[in-house]
Amino acid sequence: MKVKVAVNGYGTIGKRVADAVAAQSDMTLVGVAKTRPSFEARRAVERGYPLFVSGGGSKDGFTAAGLPIAGTIDDLVGLADVVVDCAPEKVGRENAKKYAAAGVRAIFQGGEKADVAEVSFNALANFDRARDRKTVRVVSCNTTGLARAASVVVPHWGVEHWEATIVRRAADPGETDRGPINGIIPSLHIPSHHGPDVQTILPALPIATTALVVPTTLMHVHVNHVRVSRPPPDVAHVIARFHATPRFRLFAPWEHADGTPQVMEFARDRPSGRPDMMQNVLWEAGIQVDGPDLYFFQAIHQESIVVPENIDAIRAMFGLAPDGPASIAMTDRALGIPAP
Amino acid sequence: MKVKVAVNGYGTIGKRVADAVAAQSDMTLVGVAKTRPSFEARRAVERGYPLFVSGGGSKDGFTAAGLPIAGTIDDLVGLADVVVDCAPEKVGRENAKKYAAAGVRAIFQGGEKADVAEVSFNALANFDRARDRKTVRVVSCNTTGLARAASVVVPHWGVEHWEATIVRRAADPGETDRGPINGIIPSLHIPSHHGPDVQTILPALPIATTALVVPTTLMHVHVNHVRVSRPPPDVAHVIARFHATPRFRLFAPWEHADGTPQVMEFARDRPSGRPDMMQNVLWEAGIQVDGPDLYFFQAIHQESIVVPENIDAIRAMFGLAPDGPASIAMTDRALGIPAP
Amino acid sequence: MKVKVAVNGYGTIGKRVADAVAAQSDMTLVGVAKTRPSFEARRAVERGYPLFVSGGGSKDGFTAAGLPIAGTIDDLVGLADVVVDCAPEKVGRENAKKYAAAGVRAIFQGGEKADVAEVSFNALANFDRARDRKTVRVVSCNTTGLARAASVVVPHWGVEHWEATIVRRAADPGETDRGPINGIIPSLHIPSHHGPDVQTILPALPIATTALVVPTTLMHVHVNHVRVSRPPPDVAHVIARFHATPRFRLFAPWEHADGTPQVMEFARDRPSGRPDMMQNVLWEAGIQVDGPDLYFFQAIHQESIVVPENIDAIRAMFGLAPDGPASIAMTDRALGIPAP
Amino acid sequence: MKVKVAVNGYGTIGKRVADAVAAQSDMTLVGVAKTRPSFEARRAVERGYPLFVSGGGSKDGFTAAGLPIAGTIDDLVGLADVVVDCAPEKVGRENAKKYAAAGVRAIFQGGEKADVAEVSFNALANFDRARDRKTVRVVSCNTTGLARAASVVVPHWGVEHWEATIVRRAADPGETDRGPINGIIPSLHIPSHHGPDVQTILPALPIATTALVVPTTLMHVHVNHVRVSRPPPDVAHVIARFHATPRFRLFAPWEHADGTPQVMEFARDRPSGRPDMMQNVLWEAGIQVDGPDLYFFQAIHQESIVVPENIDAIRAMFGLAPDGPASIAMTDRALGIPAP
Repeated sequence: MKVKVAVNGYGTIGKRVADAVAAQSDMTLVGVAKTRPSFEARRAVERGYPLFVSGGGSKDGFTAAGLPIAGTIDDLVGLADVVVDCAPEKVGRENAKKYAAAGVRAIFQGGEKADVAEVSFNALANFDRARDRKTVRVVSCNTTGLARAASVVVPHWGVEHWEATIVRRAADPGETDRGPINGIIPSLHIPSHHGPDVQTILPALPIATTALVVPTTLMHVHVNHVRVSRPPPDVAHVIARFHATPRFRLFAPWEHADGTPQVMEFARDRPSGRPDMMQNVLWEAGIQVDGPDLYFFQAIHQESIVVPENIDAIRAMFGLAPDGPASIAMTDRALGIPAP
Repeated sequence: MKVKVAVNGYGTIGKRVADAVAAQSDMTLVGVAKTRPSFEARRAVERGYPLFVSGGGSKDGFTAAGLPIAGTIDDLVGLADVVVDCAPEKVGRENAKKYAAAGVRAIFQGGEKADVAEVSFNALANFDRARDRKTVRVVSCNTTGLARAASVVVPHWGVEHWEATIVRRAADPGETDRGPINGIIPSLHIPSHHGPDVQTILPALPIATTALVVPTTLMHVHVNHVRVSRPPPDVAHVIARFHATPRFRLFAPWEHADGTPQVMEFARDRPSGRPDMMQNVLWEAGIQVDGPDLYFFQAIHQESIVVPENIDAIRAMFGLAPDGPASIAMTDRALGIPAP
Repeated sequence: MKVKVAVNGYGTIGKRVADAVAAQSDMTLVGVAKTRPSFEARRAVERGYPLFVSGGGSKDGFTAAGLPIAGTIDDLVGLADVVVDCAPEKVGRENAKKYAAAGVRAIFQGGEKADVAEVSFNALANFDRARDRKTVRVVSCNTTGLARAASVVVPHWGVEHWEATIVRRAADPGETDRGPINGIIPSLHIPSHHGPDVQTILPALPIATTALVVPTTLMHVHVNHVRVSRPPPDVAHVIARFHATPRFRLFAPWEHADGTPQVMEFARDRPSGRPDMMQNVLWEAGIQVDGPDLYFFQAIHQESIVVPENIDAIRAMFGLAPDGPASIAMTDRALGIPAP
Repeated sequence: MKVKVAVNGYGTIGKRVADAVAAQSDMTLVGVAKTRPSFEARRAVERGYPLFVSGGGSKDGFTAAGLPIAGTIDDLVGLADVVVDCAPEKVGRENAKKYAAAGVRAIFQGGEKADVAEVSFNALANFDRARDRKTVRVVSCNTTGLARAASVVVPHWGVEHWEATIVRRAADPGETDRGPINGIIPSLHIPSHHGPDVQTILPALPIATTALVVPTTLMHVHVNHVRVSRPPPDVAHVIARFHATPRFRLFAPWEHADGTPQVMEFARDRPSGRPDMMQNVLWEAGIQVDGPDLYFFQAIHQESIVVPENIDAIRAMFGLAPDGPASIAMTDRALGIPAP
C-alpha cells in the first residue's frame, strides 16, 4: 500500500521533491499544485504529473496555455495521505491550517519557523523523532548541511565548540530579480540564525555561525572549525569517516574540482537525473587537523540538498522503513545518489 | 554496419558529442581521449566509455586515480572510422595531421579556421555539401545559431541585409579563470568574425555582425535585424515558420521565461538527458515585423548547440541518411529534442 | 545675480547634480532634500549642503543621527528659483504639482514621461528649445548618449536609418537588491522605448533601438549602425569629428582601455572630482565605415552623463548663456570635463 | 630636506602611492616608472609626474603616444633616496638587486615573500621596527587589515585565539581577465597564508585563517572570531575602542551601508581624493560580544588600504616622525583620512 503524496508549490524545491516522490516504490505522487502557468508547469505536464491550481490562482490561465488542470488545491489535499508543502516562505504557515482542517499530514520546509510542525528533521541526525508525526519540518539547506556534518563529527570525535562561516549564494540560477551583482553583504546579526536552527535538530550542539551573501547562484560554502573532544589521528582518518557516511561526496585532488563551478559541472555530468548535488560536498585537500582543531570546507547545493530528507521524512511519518539508515539507503538508491 | 566514432578531447563539447554518439543506433562510440584525469574523466568511466590518453598526457596519472586506460590516442584513432576532434582551439589543426596520416576521417569544431577541412557544415543549411567528405568542420555555436536562423528566413522571406549584434557569454559555467566579473568588453573589430564565418556555410548571405562580451556563463544572445525581400504579413506568420522548423524553441509569454536564466532553468528541468538547450531559443514576444524589417532575439546555448550538428555531419559523411531532414529527425529523436 | 537651485532627491543623480551646481559661478545651491538619514546624507552635510527633509520623511531620524536639518521640502522650494527634481522614477510627476503650486520652475529627469514638462532637453541637440521654459525634462542616460551622438552624425553625414542595440547595466554600483547575477534579459518589446525617447529631442531622426540587460554595474554600451546620407571618406574623418565635439572621449588603442572596467578605472584616476565619466566614450578602434554604413560602439556612464545637461538646462531656462556651445563650455570647465 | 621618493610600477598600488607621496610635505615624488603606455600613463602625465620607462619597456611606445619620457628606471633610481617598488608580484624580488646595487633604500609590497626585506611593516603594529632600515616590506591588504585590528584587540582585551575567515574579492575593478564569474573557490590549503603573514608583524599572535574567493571586485570581507583574555563589558565598549583608533571607520545602522557596494559608494562620495577607503571598515551592528568571544566583520579595500602604510614606512626609515602615532596623524591629514 503506497503512501499518497501531494506537493503544494512547484518551484525550486517542489519540482525536485515531486520527481523524488515519483521515483520511490513505496510512494505515489497524486499531484502537484501551482498558482500560475509557466515553463515549469509545462514540464510538470510533460512528466505526467497531475496539475492542480493552488493559492490565489485560477484555472483559466492554465487552460489558455493548453495545460490540463485536474482540480484545485483542495481537491489535491483530499487525495493525499501527506502534503509536502513547498510554497514560498511564510506561506506554508498559512497552508498549515488547510491541511489540519482536512486531517491530512504535512511536511514543511525550513523557510518556516520551527513551531510550524511538531518536530524539525534531518535524516542522519534525528530520523526517529519524526516517527508517526502528523507534521514535520525539514530544515533549510544550510541547516541540513550542518546537521549532516554534525552527524559525522559528534559521534566520532565529539564537539567542544563548532564555528561555521556560511558564505551564501545570493540567488538561485533561475532567479533574475535578486542581487547583489558585485559586492559582499554581511549578515550583521551575530550569530546568524543558522546555529539556533541546527539546534532544533541537535539541541546540545555547541555551535555558533556567521553568514554573508555573495554574488553567485550555484552553491553555498561553509567554512567549519570544530574544537573536538577526541582528536582524530590524522586527516586520512577524517576523510575515511566522511567517505563511510551516506550523502557526502569528497573530491580528490586529481579530480580538479577547484570550486563550486566545477562541482556543479560534475553534477551536470550525471548520467541521469537532474543536474543536482544532493550530497554535502567536501574537498579532501580542504580538511585539516591541527591538534584538537578540525577544519573543513563544505559546499551545499541549495536547490537539492533537502530533497532526499523530504522523502525520508515521509518514511519516518508513515513507518515505511525500520530506521534512518534503511530509509536513506532506499531513498538514495532511487535517486541515484551513490552509496558510501 | 555502424560507423565507429572516436572523440578526441573530452571537455565541454567532447563529452556532449560522446553522449550523443552513444545515443544513435547507427553509430558506435569506440572511445574518448583525454589528457589528464579529472572529474570529467571519472564521469566518462562511469558512463562506460573506453578512455584513451591523448596529447601530452601520460597513463600514470589515470592509473593512480583508479581510472582504467584503454590505450593512447593513436590506438583510438586506429579503432575509428571517424574522429570527432574536440580538442582546444588551434590544437585541432595539429591533430589533423595525425588523422590524415592514419587515413581516418575527421570532424573539427568551429574554433579552427575554415581551411582545416574540406567544408564547413550546418545541418539545416548545407547538409548535402558534407556528403562523402573526408574532413568536415562544424561551425561554432554563434555561427550555427545564425546559420539555422538564416535557413528559415532566406527561403521564406529573402534577405536584403542581415545585421546581428552578438552578446557573448564570457565563460562556460565550469570555467573559473575567465572574466570579466563586472563589465562589458566590446569586440572592437567591426564587423566581428561571425559574419564571414556564417558565409563559409551560406556564401551569398549579406550579413554583418558586431559582438561584445558580458559577465555571464549561461548563453549568448543575438539581436537580429533583417531587411527582408518579401515581408511576412505579421508576427504570427513568422512565429509559425520558426515553430515548423526543427531545432527552434519558441517561448510563449505565459511561460514566463524572461531571460537566459529561466531558459536554462527550463533546460535543467528536462525529464532526461543533459541540462542542455540544443535548439535556438526565440521569444514569441521578442519578434517584430515592421514593414520590410524583421527583428528577433535568439539565445544560443554555447555548450550544446553544435552537438546535433556533429551527429548529422557524421551521417552526411558516411551516407547514413538520405537527406538533411531525415538525419535531423533521427538525431533529434535520439537526443530528446522535440520535433516541430 | 546667481540662480538659486534646489535639488530634491539626493541619490545617484541628485548628489551629482548638487555638486555640479555648487561648482558653477552663476548658480547657488540653496539646499538638497532627502527622505531619511544615510551615509549619503552624511556626505551632504560634510560638503556643507543645507539639508531638508523631503517626501514622507521626518526630521527626527536626521536629528538622532546628528545631521542638522534646515527645514522641509516646502521650505526648500520656497528658497529656490528652480528645483532640479531627482526623486525616484514616477515620483517626479507627483512633485510637479508642488512646484507648480509654489510658482517655482522645475527640471525633471528622464525616468518621467515626456509630458511631465514643456520640453525634453539635450544640450548639444536642442539647447534653444529650453529657453525661458518653466519646466524642462532632461532625458535619460541612454537617450542623452544617443542624442549627443546624433548631434555629430546628423549634421556631418546625414542619417537614412539609425539602428542601436543598447546593452544595459542591470544596477548601479551601490544597489544590492537588483539582478540578474548571471544571465541576459532581453527587453522583448521591439523597438525599445529609447528610440521614441530620442525623438522627443530629435523628432525627425529615423532611429530604431533594441535593448537587453546584463549583469554589470558600470556602464551601458551601445552598438550603433547608421546608414548615412553622405558617407565620410574614412574612419579617421569620423574620429576627427567626434574629437572636435564636446562631451566625447575617444580612447586610442595605446591606452589599452579594452572595455568598461578600464574606462571606469580611467574615471577613477581623475585628478579631482567624482570618479565619473560624463562624456560619451568611444573607442577609435571600435569605429568602422563601410560605404554608407557607419558603425561605432559607445559606452555611457549611467550615473553621471546627464549631470552636465541638467546644468545647461538651468542656463537655457534662465538665459545665463547666449547659446548651447557657450553653456557647454562653461559647464564643462567648471566640472573638469576636458574641452575638445 | 625632503626625502626623494621614486615609485617603480604604476598600477593599482603604484599610482595610489605616487599620489600619496605627492601629498606629503616632507617628501618629493621624483618620478614614476611604467613599462608601456596606457590610460594610466596618460593620467600620470596629467598629474605632472615625471614618467620613466621600467622593466622591458621601450621609450618608443610612449613617444608615439605623445607621452614625454624622462628617462629609464635606472635614471629614476639614481634620483631617489628610496624606491617604493609596486611591480607585479615576484618582480619586486628581481628589482631588489637593482636597488641594492645602486645603494638606494627600498620598500616592497606584500606580494613578495617576507625575506625580500629586513622587516615586514604595519604602522599601527610595529612602526619602530622599520626605523633606519634599508629595506622594508609593507604587508598585503588582508594582512594589513588583520594587523590593524590586532593592534586594537591585543592591548585592550588580549587574545587567546583569533580565527578569521577571509572572503576575498576575485579581481580588481579594472581587471577583465580574472574569474570566476559565478562561483566560490575555497583556498583549500588550511590555514591560509594570511595567518603566518600577520605573524611576520606580530609573531606572538595566535591566529589561524581560512580563505575563499568570490566573484566581486570591490573589497575583501573578514569574519573575525577572537577568544579574548579580558572580555570587554559590552559591544559599546568595543565600538568606542575602534572609534578611538586611527584608520578605522565604523558604519552606524542609520547610515544604511549594508555591504561592500554601499561602503565603496561612500568612498566614491569623498569630497576630494580618490574614491578609496583606506580605513578598515567595521559595522557597529556587526560586532558581537558573547562572554570571552568577540566577533566582528571588517571590510578591506584591497586597492588602497596599504597606501598610508607605505608613507609611514618611509617616515620610519628616514626618521621623519618621532613615533608611529605622529606619522599616522601626518599621513592621514595629508590624505584626507579622518582622525579618530
